[in-house]
Amino acid sequence: MAELEGNCLVGQSGGPTAVINATLAGFIEEALNYECIEEIYGSLNGVVGILNEDFVDLASESQQAIRGLRVSPGAALGTSRFQFKKDADYDRALEVFEAHEIRYFFYIGDNDSMATAAKLNSKAIERGYELRVIGIPKTIDNDITRTDHTPGYGSVIKYVATTVREMASDNEAVGQGDYVSILEVMGRNSGWIAAGAALCKRKDHPHDPPHLIYLPEVPFTKEKFIEDVQRVLQREKFCVIVVGEGLVDADGNYVSLGSSSIDAFGNVQLGGSGEYLKGLVEQNLSVSARSCKLGIAQRTASHCASKTDAEEAYLAGKEAVIAALENGQSGKMITLQRGESDSYVCETGLADLSEVSEGTKRIPDDWINDDGVSMNYPFVKYAMPLIQGEVDTPFDNGLPVFSKLKRVQVEKRLSVYAL
Amino acid sequence: MAELEGNCLVGQSGGPTAVINATLAGFIEEALNYECIEEIYGSLNGVVGILNEDFVDLASESQQAIRGLRVSPGAALGTSRFQFKKDADYDRALEVFEAHEIRYFFYIGDNDSMATAAKLNSKAIERGYELRVIGIPKTIDNDITRTDHTPGYGSVIKYVATTVREMASDNEAVGQGDYVSILEVMGRNSGWIAAGAALCKRKDHPHDPPHLIYLPEVPFTKEKFIEDVQRVLQREKFCVIVVGEGLVDADGNYVSLGSSSIDAFGNVQLGGSGEYLKGLVEQNLSVSARSCKLGIAQRTASHCASKTDAEEAYLAGKEAVIAALENGQSGKMITLQRGESDSYVCETGLADLSEVSEGTKRIPDDWINDDGVSMNYPFVKYAMPLIQGEVDTPFDNGLPVFSKLKRVQVEKRLSVYAL
Repeated sequence: MAELEGNCLVGQSGGPTAVINATLAGFIEEALNYECIEEIYGSLNGVVGILNEDFVDLASESQQAIRGLRVSPGAALGTSRFQFKKDADYDRALEVFEAHEIRYFFYIGDNDSMATAAKLNSKAIERGYELRVIGIPKTIDNDITRTDHTPGYGSVIKYVATTVREMASDNEAVGQGDYVSILEVMGRNSGWIAAGAALCKRKDHPHDPPHLIYLPEVPFTKEKFIEDVQRVLQREKFCVIVVGEGLVDADGNYVSLGSSSIDAFGNVQLGGSGEYLKGLVEQNLSVSARSCKLGIAQRTASHCASKTDAEEAYLAGKEAVIAALENGQSGKMITLQRGESDSYVCETGLADLSEVSEGTKRIPDDWINDDGVSMNYPFVKYAMPLIQGEVDTPFDNGLPVFSKLKRVQVEKRLSVYAL
Repeated sequence: MAELEGNCLVGQSGGPTAVINATLAGFIEEALNYECIEEIYGSLNGVVGILNEDFVDLASESQQAIRGLRVSPGAALGTSRFQFKKDADYDRALEVFEAHEIRYFFYIGDNDSMATAAKLNSKAIERGYELRVIGIPKTIDNDITRTDHTPGYGSVIKYVATTVREMASDNEAVGQGDYVSILEVMGRNSGWIAAGAALCKRKDHPHDPPHLIYLPEVPFTKEKFIEDVQRVLQREKFCVIVVGEGLVDADGNYVSLGSSSIDAFGNVQLGGSGEYLKGLVEQNLSVSARSCKLGIAQRTASHCASKTDAEEAYLAGKEAVIAALENGQSGKMITLQRGESDSYVCETGLADLSEVSEGTKRIPDDWINDDGVSMNYPFVKYAMPLIQGEVDTPFDNGLPVFSKLKRVQVEKRLSVYAL
């Protein structure tokens, strides 16, 4: 295969995770190996950085800083939910690419970002601009299709399950009678994160928390909820509930819309499903309830990240470079694939970007028990390998230390573009 | 000093912490050293266990289980907020003590528990029942007087400051414009926990989060809050706010009482100050805001506990036994005292239980900056040593493993007592 000489560009997009920077580290460390790559640029704030020519020189970062990315949450290049809106945006992007001789574009992101990458790839082909585009999945939500799971998911459920186990130790100590604790976790459209709390339940320990899990996949009714809690409280001294933020009723309406609002990206800001359930318990059962909401803390909790997840995130970054550079691939997304053997092995594969960006992966119906509030063995078998191992977070003076990039700006070559 | 032969009893009370079990471990390991102690009993659920004769045999627990307590959150003996209400309760307690030949009583708890221990000590003297009573402080709230700080505090602020630093990495990645994140932490009457978030701010890094800290010590006004947030957003790309649950206005009324309720212990259940501030931001500044509420998760977050705190908690347990057994002390509480030297050294001391139980320790006014929303150097100097070092939490199959006691019941000797 003919070598394609030029510069490469990487961007991060969507919500941060504990390991999105591990992917960036894997990408940079691998990209440094190829002679046909001259410059390794990072685009600041995803595709916004492309339109604005906001590039930084990643090759000039210290090895220490790059290694530190493997254990640093957030998004070192800055992220964004901005998407190209019009054809002119794609034209501008290709113009910028040409000006900076960018022949490789890597986009670390979720469904929306894969759609952007797919379209940019098509546009380049249409224009005859030689460009290789590879997407790298990331999201705590685990809702990207074609990949067995997403980098970021293992870490968030390790943190959530750890939190549930710790909350349970509180409830066990305090709960001499009726006592309900509620943990609200993220998940607008799918319950993958809430479901992950089920990993807390040890095999053959039916009394282990969480006792009830409410997923966006299962239509919520007040009546069943009250019955569920009553049933648990008859059996246990306390009741630990995990609820996804995007809980909906039978008509698909968010149950806690009353307390939500629209965020700066135009997304409905959910949250409040925990407080909503707390209210239901107190009003209907005269039982004391408390709710916690991890919010954005859960998507950057690198101090409790999964080693498996961090390693896979790093691997995905490396494999993206290999796919484009060694195999000449373009228009693809790196996928994580589970080996066939009983013991967990993770390999990478490729999927078409255009196919990936369609649809959202939800939890298979048959992984949810008939009671609608617990997960069955196939789910546990799926998720348990993803939380294995602990990341060795560096601490200094009592607190975790995160890597910061110098962000050496690349000189702009074009005039300003109106976003 | 004449040896006092008999059995000893220990109980845990109030809200759990990450290290209250480390105190129990220190207590048990030290108590095993004394020949004049025959049995080492644990009272289940604090003083409730005394009235009900609900005792377990701690000497029969495995060494592994006791060692495991040093890294297990919650309260292994169960806790309670029950307090003796009438003279008959004290009479019953002494009757139970006599029946079980208990000559040493150790109570691990907060202000209220110290008051109970003080009164039990007086009652025993009044009746001529030879008993030694030692209190051991514990609370995440750090509001017990006469001790430099309380076991449990260092761990909660390490967790909170870690969370703030991680949230900040999220905000830094996402925040390209106005963006406000709010973290609500515990603290009904004092802002020690919220203040602890200030440890995130590195020396000579004035832009470091948290940008604003709201304490129960500083009367809250909506107008100043809006001004504060505006000022930060003019200067920074995002604004990280930490708020204590017990925020009050100039008249001492809780600002977020609307969303509170009364819990099973009759305490006003606060919480909601974070959501309240979120609402203020959105209504008054047209800026996107998110709030997180760690709730009970913060008082059992042993996966992010402070090694210093865990060691001091363990030490306090040991020293309580030494005070009673070697020095014949009674009616005292173990205190943690800071050495005079510049480098932090923690020693233990003793304070009268009766004096300890009066009042709540609040943050000194002159540790809060004039702006009312940040902490000054004396606070940082005070708190920084308390979060040093990480506890080596044992993980198995991806999740922390906590020690569970066998709880071998001690045979009851008296008839049932009506609580």
